[in-house]
Formats: sequence, structure tokens, C-alpha cells
Amino acid sequence: MSSVTAAGRDLLRSRGWISSDGKTALTLEQLCDRLLSSRGEALGTAIASTVVERCKEFDSNQCDAFFELLVARYGVDQQALAEAIDTYQSRPTAAARAALNRATEAPRQELFRRINMAPDGTQTLVNLRAQLLQSLAAKPHLGEVDSDLRHLLGSWFNRGFLQLTAIDWRTPAHILEKLMAYEAVHAMHGWADLRRRLAGDRRCFAFFHPAMPDEPLIFVQVALCRGMATSVQKLLEEAVDESAQSSADTAIFYSISDCQRGLKGVSLGNFLIKQVVLELQRDLPNLSQFATLSPIPGLVNWLQKNREVIEPSGEHSEALVALLDALADGGDPGAAWQRLEQSNGQQLVERLAAHYLYRAKRGQQPLDAVARFHLRNGAALEQVNVSGDTSVKGRAQSLGVMVNYRYRLDAVESNHEAFVSDHHIATEKSFIKQLEGNKRRQ
Amino acid sequence: MSSVTAAGRDLLRSRGWISSDGKTALTLEQLCDRLLSSRGEALGTAIASTVVERCKEFDSNQCDAFFELLVARYGVDQQALAEAIDTYQSRPTAAARAALNRATEAPRQELFRRINMAPDGTQTLVNLRAQLLQSLAAKPHLGEVDSDLRHLLGSWFNRGFLQLTAIDWRTPAHILEKLMAYEAVHAMHGWADLRRRLAGDRRCFAFFHPAMPDEPLIFVQVALCRGMATSVQKLLEEAVDESAQSSADTAIFYSISDCQRGLKGVSLGNFLIKQVVLELQRDLPNLSQFATLSPIPGLVNWLQKNREVIEPSGEHSEALVALLDALADGGDPGAAWQRLEQSNGQQLVERLAAHYLYRAKRGQQPLDAVARFHLRNGAALEQVNVSGDTSVKGRAQSLGVMVNYRYRLDAVESNHEAFVSDHHIATEKSFIKQLEGNKRRQ
Amino acid sequence: MSSVTAAGRDLLRSRGWISSDGKTALTLEQLCDRLLSSRGEALGTAIASTVVERCKEFDSNQCDAFFELLVARYGVDQQALAEAIDTYQSRPTAAARAALNRATEAPRQELFRRINMAPDGTQTLVNLRAQLLQSLAAKPHLGEVDSDLRHLLGSWFNRGFLQLTAIDWRTPAHILEKLMAYEAVHAMHGWADLRRRLAGDRRCFAFFHPAMPDEPLIFVQVALCRGMATSVQKLLEEAVDESAQSSADTAIFYSISDCQRGLKGVSLGNFLIKQVVLELQRDLPNLSQFATLSPIPGLVNWLQKNREVIEPSGEHSEALVALLDALADGGDPGAAWQRLEQSNGQQLVERLAAHYLYRAKRGQQPLDAVARFHLRNGAALEQVNVSGDTSVKGRAQSLGVMVNYRYRLDAVESNHEAFVSDHHIATEKSFIKQLEGNKRRQ
Amino acid sequence: MSSVTAAGRDLLRSRGWISSDGKTALTLEQLCDRLLSSRGEALGTAIASTVVERCKEFDSNQCDAFFELLVARYGVDQQALAEAIDTYQSRPTAAARAALNRATEAPRQELFRRINMAPDGTQTLVNLRAQLLQSLAAKPHLGEVDSDLRHLLGSWFNRGFLQLTAIDWRTPAHILEKLMAYEAVHAMHGWADLRRRLAGDRRCFAFFHPAMPDEPLIFVQVALCRGMATSVQKLLEEAVDESAQSSADTAIFYSISDCQRGLKGVSLGNFLIKQVVLELQRDLPNLSQFATLSPIPGLVNWLQKNREVIEPSGEHSEALVALLDALADGGDPGAAWQRLEQSNGQQLVERLAAHYLYRAKRGQQPLDAVARFHLRNGAALEQVNVSGDTSVKGRAQSLGVMVNYRYRLDAVESNHEAFVSDHHIATEKSFIKQLEGNKRRQ
Repeated sequence: MSSVTAAGRDLLRSRGWISSDGKTALTLEQLCDRLLSSRGEALGTAIASTVVERCKEFDSNQCDAFFELLVARYGVDQQALAEAIDTYQSRPTAAARAALNRATEAPRQELFRRINMAPDGTQTLVNLRAQLLQSLAAKPHLGEVDSDLRHLLGSWFNRGFLQLTAIDWRTPAHILEKLMAYEAVHAMHGWADLRRRLAGDRRCFAFFHPAMPDEPLIFVQVALCRGMATSVQKLLEEAVDESAQSSADTAIFYSISDCQRGLKGVSLGNFLIKQVVLELQRDLPNLSQFATLSPIPGLVNWLQKNREVIEPSGEHSEALVALLDALADGGDPGAAWQRLEQSNGQQLVERLAAHYLYRAKRGQQPLDAVARFHLRNGAALEQVNVSGDTSVKGRAQSLGVMVNYRYRLDAVESNHEAFVSDHHIATEKSFIKQLEGNKRRQ
Repeated sequence: MSSVTAAGRDLLRSRGWISSDGKTALTLEQLCDRLLSSRGEALGTAIASTVVERCKEFDSNQCDAFFELLVARYGVDQQALAEAIDTYQSRPTAAARAALNRATEAPRQELFRRINMAPDGTQTLVNLRAQLLQSLAAKPHLGEVDSDLRHLLGSWFNRGFLQLTAIDWRTPAHILEKLMAYEAVHAMHGWADLRRRLAGDRRCFAFFHPAMPDEPLIFVQVALCRGMATSVQKLLEEAVDESAQSSADTAIFYSISDCQRGLKGVSLGNFLIKQVVLELQRDLPNLSQFATLSPIPGLVNWLQKNREVIEPSGEHSEALVALLDALADGGDPGAAWQRLEQSNGQQLVERLAAHYLYRAKRGQQPLDAVARFHLRNGAALEQVNVSGDTSVKGRAQSLGVMVNYRYRLDAVESNHEAFVSDHHIATEKSFIKQLEGNKRRQ
Repeated sequence: MSSVTAAGRDLLRSRGWISSDGKTALTLEQLCDRLLSSRGEALGTAIASTVVERCKEFDSNQCDAFFELLVARYGVDQQALAEAIDTYQSRPTAAARAALNRATEAPRQELFRRINMAPDGTQTLVNLRAQLLQSLAAKPHLGEVDSDLRHLLGSWFNRGFLQLTAIDWRTPAHILEKLMAYEAVHAMHGWADLRRRLAGDRRCFAFFHPAMPDEPLIFVQVALCRGMATSVQKLLEEAVDESAQSSADTAIFYSISDCQRGLKGVSLGNFLIKQVVLELQRDLPNLSQFATLSPIPGLVNWLQKNREVIEPSGEHSEALVALLDALADGGDPGAAWQRLEQSNGQQLVERLAAHYLYRAKRGQQPLDAVARFHLRNGAALEQVNVSGDTSVKGRAQSLGVMVNYRYRLDAVESNHEAFVSDHHIATEKSFIKQLEGNKRRQ
Repeated sequence: MSSVTAAGRDLLRSRGWISSDGKTALTLEQLCDRLLSSRGEALGTAIASTVVERCKEFDSNQCDAFFELLVARYGVDQQALAEAIDTYQSRPTAAARAALNRATEAPRQELFRRINMAPDGTQTLVNLRAQLLQSLAAKPHLGEVDSDLRHLLGSWFNRGFLQLTAIDWRTPAHILEKLMAYEAVHAMHGWADLRRRLAGDRRCFAFFHPAMPDEPLIFVQVALCRGMATSVQKLLEEAVDESAQSSADTAIFYSISDCQRGLKGVSLGNFLIKQVVLELQRDLPNLSQFATLSPIPGLVNWLQKNREVIEPSGEHSEALVALLDALADGGDPGAAWQRLEQSNGQQLVERLAAHYLYRAKRGQQPLDAVARFHLRNGAALEQVNVSGDTSVKGRAQSLGVMVNYRYRLDAVESNHEAFVSDHHIATEKSFIKQLEGNKRRQ
């Protein structure tokens, strides 16, 4: 198709819109104006392609300049909006309401739709939004552009348009390479690590969008186990168990990674997990449990600020406080760790982690971001696992504790409902035991 | 994937939302409410699938009832809209504008987006709109639903999401069968006719959408010729010319058919034609001319109402008037045809057809619908062809005259621009001759 | 790849082996000599392609001339063979044996292998053999060429190289068109008939060879039924039963057609049936019976020659004799049929058909060709069905009787073994009843 | 399909041929006997699959035992052969000749064909031959088995059945992984190295066989360059040149690797090179030169044995002799290398390398194996490149010299012919200069 794009470029050159050295003779603003005008219709994707080419070469200053243009030139026409309100208020017909709706929609939305006509248009818009999200903190007035992009991308990346794809060692290398780059939870150490994660006792699934066939949107890595998995290091390092396909009873979702920053806020993960549960149930009827092995990213942070929850109770609470001090100092916490372990502090840590997940709140929501995601999604707290992640990062953020969120499809909807309406957190018995052990003893 | 859908159904059954005999225990309204609520999130595509199943089984009464529901229950909340206007007027911030925009959007748009999550959701919405368009004449108040659906489908069927596919005799039979059913211009008479239209001296291209892989959206049939084609019967009946691939200099677009009534108003044809021109240029570099061989659907109708344009000028004008009388009577115009032909009336008919295409207007637009489409699209009038379509239908609607619209890619944009801004109709010299012959002699 | 073939042709032209008008400058004999020589190695597939092009344009005289060439010029060198025998007899080493083996192989085998290097080479050789089989009756001395071709094709069309493909309404039209042409048992009446045979209650499977991807080799049509099917007209005409996929307990193989005459004698059918039984068992676990509904092509012929088996026993035997007379005369047997039906002759016909299948022999083999195929294949006689095929052809060859051969995978091997070693014919109880009814009453 | 294979196994178990623990109840000999007997026909691929499973688990002793079985039990029946000779000699008909041919073919050939019916059968036979080639040196009497296998594989891996596949970074990872393992000329150092070799200025092509879709048979790596490449290190290390696709005029074949030891002696490489030349010509019309950059594996070995060709001519010849001594000693030749370089020995080395390639013979053939391959293939000697391969291996085997063999398609056939009939070596002018410089000065 690239020769077809080339033909479009020749056309624009013949119109004097692109200069002969391949650079655009028209400014980006002029191109966008033409794209939005009825000319956009006539030259099909040619102008859009030129805008896309320009966007691809943006440095961050040019990006910001484009965002400002989108606010200033392609925002809502306030005069026209005032008139549409008048018309509606004087006679509130369906037509007047529709006109009012149109008057509240910034023209940049149509501009985005036309940019999307070009090859690579969708990816370009996703990338623009990724850039935009970076600029947003310093320039909150760009928020209205973000809001429009998010609305559009949300509609285009509707679940009905996504394609679930199983990833394995037969997947094309250029896709696998991207998975390695996008893995956000437990970094992959090269191709050998990747290959192990795609072996016979593992599964991997990704969502793709037809307009971005070479770009995974989100992917989840699954381990087939006997019983609940409690240590991510064990999962990542253990030898391949070829018999797992027939003997495993549990599927552990041990890593979920978003791949496109530009799709932030577009729901993908909740669909992915439930769809994958259904796929696995069908393909591996022996599976009876579905759960995550998830990090608890906010635990240490919260403990630092809420040390009062660590009631003084002897050697292990002292050891824990010493460890938190060491972590806060940023020094080597090695000795402090040793002291905690020797003082049998695991139970204390377990109780505190369970307490944190169940009781620490921001407003009425769980404080922990991962907890919010899975609980809102309809999962239940299954159990916390001391020494679940003994990596430096794992110990620094959560004292090495991980947690299983359990997905029971027949409870997902009521869990979700109770969570959303009553802020109720679903729990399995095993978790309650850990939590109550907590209550009883503290 | 069907077993996955089945699993979703089992879920709903376990929640008591579907009864055990497979019928829905909840009403459609209740299902839609739940789909729109946050539960929609939790149960993913399961509720949406159930709504889709219900829609598929609608008779036209149920369809209309659903449309009324969409107006009454899922329309704009006018109270909330009034408040949003107040807020905006009291302080017209970007946030207030965004809130106003949301308040003007009917909740049914979100409902449609959620229905789309289900397998077959997109097709279901397209089919719903096809039904809606039928009901609209009698029930104009449904127009606001149509407007929402059209907006959404326009966004989803953006050019960037469409896939151009070459159709030939190796295409799966179930697709070919649909092309036969959808052919709207020159009906196909069974598989032998289809096969001839897919032979080596023909081309066929269709747009598909990834969410409806088994349904062509629009397709165009092309004949590879030496010189401009002037008779559609010759095109359809002539023997296959295997050498056309190397020797043809002209590509004739002799049939363009929309396949999905529910996509009415969503631009597809203009993209298709230009894209196909680019594809053909690349694959067959010998081609130097691209043109249609198009019907003139409004010619006879217009002549009946504007007989004064036929200035009395002897036998052939009398013969033509007699023919129009015979056509108006609905009787057998055979004798009248013979008389016209014997009186050498072809030139008169040619002139009148050119006159009609160039001068007959509705407002400032060409009266003829096909002319409006191609001229707006950037084509130019090339020549009218007396005896271009000698079928009963062709003679009844246009006295058998057809017309070539010429597509020159390097003129498409200026033609379009001149047409849109100044109502200027682009013409080739050959057409001007036919038209002036007209002027001169009348 | 065609441009690659073209490049090869340019090469030969530059060598003066093809003349500039595309015709070969060298004779076929010269081309074959070069192809067999070491030059064949150097120019890769170019010479082979030229030979293939020539073969495709053969008329039957040129074909026969080529066959004579293959006998005369590329047969065994008898002088060299005599010497190889001498060497072997004087010292029977492994090397001498190998040399003797080579000396007994005609050089045309290597010629065939080299022709096969060209695109379309395999199909060309298959077609050549189809031609050869036609010439063989008149020219038995070509038998040695046939023997070589059959050996080679048998090796190349080894089961391990065949690909089983499910055929349905999504299959490319050019393949479906060929199935219609190749159907040899119950002729298909156009696309509507084909479509019905590919509906949800039917299955169709074909073997393909990777070197001939557009050509089915053999295909079988299957009906999913409740209980044994007894009438082919019912199968072909009945309305589609969409529930058959879940409710059917029996798979009826009602048509098996070889597609390539040139593969005569290469075992395909026996593999196909058993493989399809395995596929169906896996996909449709409700199926518990697998059987054919087969013609009895030799029944009437045999009855005409063995009228004594029809013991005089009243009206129905007289009616049958009259019917056979009418069939022999070639006149309209309508009245005779009516008489037989009115005389309740069905039981008599059933008994005679069972007797024929079980007792009529050629040597120790069943006389009926279809019976020989299925019984050798390991099937058992299940039951004969009077009025199984009421077409003109069916009545003329077998008085309308058809027969079910039952395939039980766990008995296939012992049935086959008993058939091959002891000429034992496997039967189901139902058949024995029909046969013994026969014995008892006659 | 694996469930289908499983069904076949169930069948054999029900016959008592496999024991319930999955181990075979019958010996391999018994299984082979049954496979060769008519039972093989009845149970289709089931027995063959069992034999294949057994072969896959062979250790080398079991392998050898199987080979002995193939000699002893499935060799030619010498008694029957003697009789066939008698019959033929008493009456040398075509039928007697055919019978004699059959009598000279060992039954193991038919056994191999039947093993091939099983899934993985072809690969199993290829692997068996790889094993056999290892055993052959110690057990020459197995040669007759090898001869049969080679004959069969030669017929099955006929050029007409091979599929040329372009390999790039979109190729499935499990295939790429195999390429890395099979690369025999310039070892790949992990995925980064592989990725560089598949970048936009490189090409890679492989032959596959349809019965072994996951196994490359042979592959060639190509660099797109401006001008002839003279250093393999530069090729392997240089930065990607994205413009090479449009600007390169030369395609350098810098590595050709066989992947299947079991296909030794089956011609693949000569077809591959010429086919790839044709493909490249079509896709990249700017290419005007096609050549290899090849090792000279035998140079140092030959110099060691033919030191007299190094006529004493001062410092550089002494330095070279010293270097050869150092290499022969197996010590570190670093100092000797330095001395040679400082003495400007490159010209001497160049002359000697050219001399070796052109004049060093084994019988009438070039002594160097790589030279034999390309020259027989129709290539010409283009030039030798001192410092073409500065790796340890390259210096040890050829003093770091590499050579370009030039492929001109229009000369390939005459070059080949002259080489085969007259032992004539084709040369380009550039090479002759290097060689004559040689002659003149030595």
C-alpha cells in the first residue's frame, strides 16, 4: 500500500501543497484547515497522510505547539455556542438540542477523525495523546484536548473492535520484541526469559486493534499451577512443567501490562481478564481456580506514614520499625531484613499487609491502586503472601509481600456491584483468617 | 468463540437474568438499564450479547417499540440540560462547556457503545439503523435516534478502519453470494454472470470493516477496456478478453453498490473510487483513463415535466414526444421506440441528456442524484452515450442513455472545490461538444 | 511468481532454446535430453517449465507421440541391463545389486522428476497419466510408462503429504466449482444444490496436495442424521436441519468422488474415510454410527445374467422378470415398475440384492466394485435399502436398491484382515436377517 | 490433529498392540512387519504413528539396532532376485523387466513410505538418515540403507515440492530460533545479531517442505550493498543502511547454511541461489550484480602441504612461512601476523589464494569444497579479498582471505557446462588480474 500513499503525495505535490524536497510547503495549520474543509473530502486520505507524517516527526516543542493550536483554533466557537443556547431556550425542539450538541463539540474532534483516515492515523492519535498526557501537568488548559481525544479513543477502542490474540513462541518476533519492551510488572531479561514465559505451562494473551495490527494494546501473562501461586520468583524461575496443561488446576495472572500510554483511561484490563478466564476454561477444563499474583505497590509508603498500626509487641515489631527506618534512609536495609527474619516477623508483616489492603482508604476507596483495579473489577481478596516478591523493588515497595485476587466468574458481578454501591470489599475465607489473626493479636 | 459466548449466557442464567428455557427473564428495558449501569462494566459482554440476541429476533413492531424506548428513556435529560446551561452561562469555563456537551448527548449513545461490545454488536446496530430508516417516514420523531446512530456509525466506519479487498473468483463463496444479492445497478443473473464479472478483464473491490468480516460494505465493479466504454450491455455480455490486463488503457467503473442500508449517509463511495484508481494505477501501469459508465436515473422523469425543452423540429422531436407519452401511459412503447430510431432521433436524445445533466438543477445542485455524487466527488462529465443501456429499465428511466464521468486524480480536488463553492460543473471537451451541439441546434 | 518464470524464459531465449515468438526453437526431444543432462541442474527450473508449457498445449496426437518417445528413448537400456546382471551374477555385492537396481529403472523416471521441478509440474504429470490411461487400451506397450508414472505418483501422493481440508460455504468459489464438476456419484445441479450439501447438517472433506493447492484430489460428502439413512433422494432434497450438529447420532458418507483420473490406482479413498471418521468423532462427540449410503452398480447386470436366482414364486417374481426384460430392451420400464410395486416385490428385491452383495463373486472377490472397495477397506455390510435411489440411473443399475456399509473403527482392521486372507465378508446382524430371509424363503 | 492421533493410539491399544501404559506391547520388528503387510492399509496411519513415536525415543544404540534390522530383514530377497533374473533372461519382456526392477528394490523402501504416512513421518526419516550418516563410517555395510533413504528423500524433496519463503523480523520466533542454531558459516551471537541480519538492507530466504512446515531446510543470507563486498566483518557489524533498498546495486550472498544433516546429497543450494537471484531482480530492479562473499576453507591446509608455491622473495615470503609455522604449532600467531602485515604481505597472500582457487585440484576438480559448489553451480571467480574475514577462524583456515563468486544468470548454464565437461573454471577479468599478478611475479 505504500506506493498508494506515495501516489497521494504526488497529488499534493502537483497542487503545490508539498514542496519538491518532500517538506510541506503549507504550514501545519493550513493543512489542518484544508483537511477540515470540504477539500478534505475530495483528496481523501492524502492530506491526512501529510499531517500524520508531520506529527511523526514532531519534537516535544512542536507537539506542544500543535496542542496549543488545537485549543486556540479548533476549540468550541463560543459565540456560536451562545447562539445555539439562545435558540434552544427560545424553542427547545429536538433539532435545537441536536444543534446545541454540535455547538458544544470542538471542531478538533472532526479534525481527529479526518487525521484517522490516513494510514497509521490511529497510532498517531494514540501517540499524540501519550505526549499530551506528559504536557498536561504543566499545562492544565490542554485538558480539554485530552478530554476530546479520550472520548474518541474510548469509542474507537470499544471492546467490540478489539481482537484477543494468544501469544506464544510461534508469534512473529517483532510482536514479541514489543511485549518485552512493554512488560511493566516483572521486567523480562531477554529472549530466554521471554521464551520461558511462553512455554507449555504458561499462557499469554493480548488485545489488538485492527487499525494497529503490529501493536499490542495490553497483555496478560498466566501461569498454569497446581494450587495458588505464592511467589513470583518461583514462577519466573522454575523449570518448565510440560504436564501442566493436563494437571494444572489453577491459572495465575501474574503480570498485566498496558502497552499504549495514549490509551490511559480507556478500559481494557477488565475485559481482558474476564475474556481470558473464559478462554482458559474452554481450553483447559481442568482449571478450577483463577487468581492473580499481584504486587501491593503502596504498602511501605503507607506504613511509613502510619507507623501507629505497628503496635509495639516485642522483637519483631521493633525489627520492622528498624527496617522501615532503613528503607526511609535509602541505605542498605540488609541487616534490618535479617533481624526481621530472625525475629519471626513474617506473621506481623502478613497481618499488616492484609490490614492495609482491607482498611487503608482514600475516601471510601481502597488506597492501593492495584487493589482498586481488581476489586472494582469484581475480584475478591484471597490471601497475602509474605516473601511473594523478594526482588529489591518488591521489598522496597511492599516488604516483599504479594497478594492473590481471586476471580470467580459467578461472583464477579455481585462483587463489583457491592464494591461500587457500598464500597464493600469481597474476601475469601483464607484472607479473613489472615486479617482476623491481625485483629485478634493487635 | 461461540463457547465463550455460551459461557457468558450461563453466567446470566446463574444470576436469574435469563430464564432456563433460554428466554430472557428480564425485559429488554431492564437489560438495557443494567447494561448502561456500572454492572455493564462487570459482566463485560454478557449483557450486551443478550441484548444483541433479542434485537436479532425483533419483528418490526418490536423494533419500533425499541426505538420509542430509545427516545423516551434514553434521550437527553432536559432538566439536567437546563442546569448545565445555567452553570455554563454563570461561569463559562472549559469544564462547564464539557459538562454542557455531555448533557446534550443522549444516554442512548453510550447504550449503543455498550451494545457494540457484544459479538455481532456492530452488525446489529447497522441493521437497527436500516430498520429505523424505514420507520422514519411515518415517525419523524425518531429522527433524533437516527441522528445519534449515524454519528456513531460515521465515527466507527471512518476510512482509517476500512479494509480494501480485491474480490475475484478465489473469494469465499459466502461473500460472493452476498455481492450477487447486493448488486444494485445491473442485476446479476446467477453464478455464471458473476464469474464473468470476475474474469481476467474485470476487477472488483470492496470495503470491509474488521468487526463485520463477512459483510461487504460497498463494492465497485471495473471493466478493463480499450477506449471509453459506451454500452453496458456490451460490457456485461462480451467474451472474456484475457489480454486486457496488458493491453487495456481505460478502467470503467460500471457499477457501484452500497450493501448496508444502515450505513446510509456514511461516506464510503468517494473513498472507494479514488482508492481503487490508485490501486489500478499501481497494478496496471498501462491504464491512462479512469471513468464510470453511469445511469442517468432522472432523465425521463424530468423530460416528462419539462417537455418544452424539446423544441418542435420535425419528425424526431415528434417521435420523442410520442415515446414519452407511451412511457407515461405505462403501455408497450415498442412502436414509439421504432419510430424514434427510424427518425434518427439519437442526436436529439444525446443533446437533451447532456442538457439535463448540465443544466437541470434542484436549487443550485444538479437534479440527477448520480451526477451529484460523482461531480461532488471531483469527477468531470466526459460524454453521454445514446443506447448505453438498452434494458427495459434503462430505456424507461433514461431513454437508454448512459454517461461517463471521468476521474482525473490531479483534477479531482479543484473540480470538487469549484463544485462545492461555485456550483461549477467540470466537463471534458467531448461533453461540451455534445452540449453545444445541443445549444446550437435548439 | 509468474514474473520469476518469465525471467527463466528470458534466459532460455538468450540461449537460443526458445525462439523470439515464444515458440520453442528446440524440439521436445532436445529439451528433454537437456533436462536429463547435467544442464538440467544448471538452469534449474527453466527448461522444465518449457517442457511443462509444451505438455499443456498437447493435442492427443502430440501426447501419444510423447508417450512413444518415453518408451523408445527414455526406456531401460537393455544392453546396460545385461551387463549389470553379469556383474551381479559374477559377484553379488550390495553395490552390484544397487547398480542392477539402477539399470532396471528407466531414465524417464528421472525425466519425470525433473519435469516436476517446474511450477505446475506435478499437475502436468498427473494430467499426462490421465491421457496415458486413455491411450493404454489401444496401445498396451505404453504400459511400462504408466507403471513408472504410477510408481512415482504413488510415492509423491503418500498419505503423509496429503492435507485434509474441510469444505464448506466459506471455501473459495474456484474450489467449489471444481467439486461440482468432479462429483461423480450424485450429480450436483448447480450452486443451490451445492450450497444445500454444505449446510449445517452436512460435512464435506477433501484431500489436497501442497503442489496442487487449487485441485481437490478426492472428496467425501457426509450427512449428519438420526439413525441410518436409507434414501439418497431424501438426503439430497430434505430441508436443512440446523439442529443436526447437536442431535445427530449417525454420519452417512453418501458420495465419494475421485477428482484426478491421473491418480488412478493411488490409494486415497481408504485413508480419507477413516480420517474423516476420526475428525467427526472429535468434533461431534454425539455421533455413534458411521456408515455409507452406497450404490450397487452391478446388481441389474448380474440379475440379467443369473435369472435362475429368481425362483418362480408367484406374481412378484414374474413382475421382476418382466421388469428385467423391459430394462434389457431399453424401453420405458414404467409399467413393469408399477406391476412390481403392486405385487409387493420389495422383499424379493431386498433379498436378491443382499444375496448379490454377499454371494456373487469374481474369483473369490465380491463381484460388485463398490462392495470390494468398502469391504477390503474394513467396513461391514449393514443393510440393503429398497427404494434407496429412485433416480432413473439408480433404478437402471440396481433396481433402486442402495446399501449401507458400516465403519466401526475398532473392527476395521480385523474385518480387513479376514477379507484379505480368507475372503471373509463382515456383516452386521441387520444384514444377516435380510440375507437369511432370503435363504429361508427362496 | 493431535486428538486424531490419540484416537489412532486408542485403536491400537484395543487391538492389544500397545500396552496400557503407553508402551508398545509389540516389538518394533513386529510393528514394522504389520506396517508392511496388508494390515498397514487397514489401520492407516495408526501403526506408522507408533513406529514414529518409537523412533523419536531411540538412543543411538537402538538406532543402530534398527539400521541392522533394515539390512537384515528388509533388504533385497536374493533368492527372489535370482529367479527374477532367470525369468528375464529366458524372456526379456517389459513385464519381466518390471518384475526385475521390483526384485531389486529392498522392501525397506516401502517400509519408509509407510512410515511417512504418520504425522512427523517425513521429519523422522530425515532424522534417521542424519543418525545413519554418523554410523556409516564405522559400519559401511549400512550404506545400502543410506542409498535407499537418499533416493527416497531426493524424490520427495524435489524442487517442485519446496517452498521459498522470505525470512524477516516478522517471521515467527520459533523459526528464527532455528535459523540461529543452524547458521553454519558466520555464527550468530544472539537475537540482536539476528535482528541486524534481518534489517532493511538485508534479505534472507529459506526453502521449506510442506510436510515439515516448522523446519527450514536451507537458508541464504543476503546483504544489499553498493559495489562488491570485500569484508564479512564489515557486513556483520556495520550500521543499518535504510536507503539500501533503493540505492544498492549489488546483492551479496554471504552465508548459506544447510539445516538438515539428513538431507545431505539432496540438491537444494543450487536451486536456492538461482531462485533468490530471480526474486531479488524482480523486487529490487536496481540490483545489477549478484555475488557471494565466501570462505576459502582449504587454503591454509593446502599451503602447509605445498609450501613450495611460496617462492622465496624477501621479507614477506619469510613472514608468511613463519606464520604458517605458528599456525601449525597451534600457538598464538599474533606476532607472526604482525610481521606479515608490516612486510606488506597482502599481495603475496592474494596471489597465493587466487592460485589455490584456480589451480589446486583433486583429480580434475578444484580442491576447495566451496569453490567446487559454486563453480559447478555456474558461478565465476570474481576476486579474492585479503582481510575478508579477520576472525580467528577465518585467519586460521584461509589467512583471512575470502572470495567473491559472481552469479550472472545468462552465463550460469554455459559456465556449468564448461565446468562439467571440460573442467573449465569461469573467471571474471578482475580475478584474472589477481591471478596473473601472481604468475608474473612468482
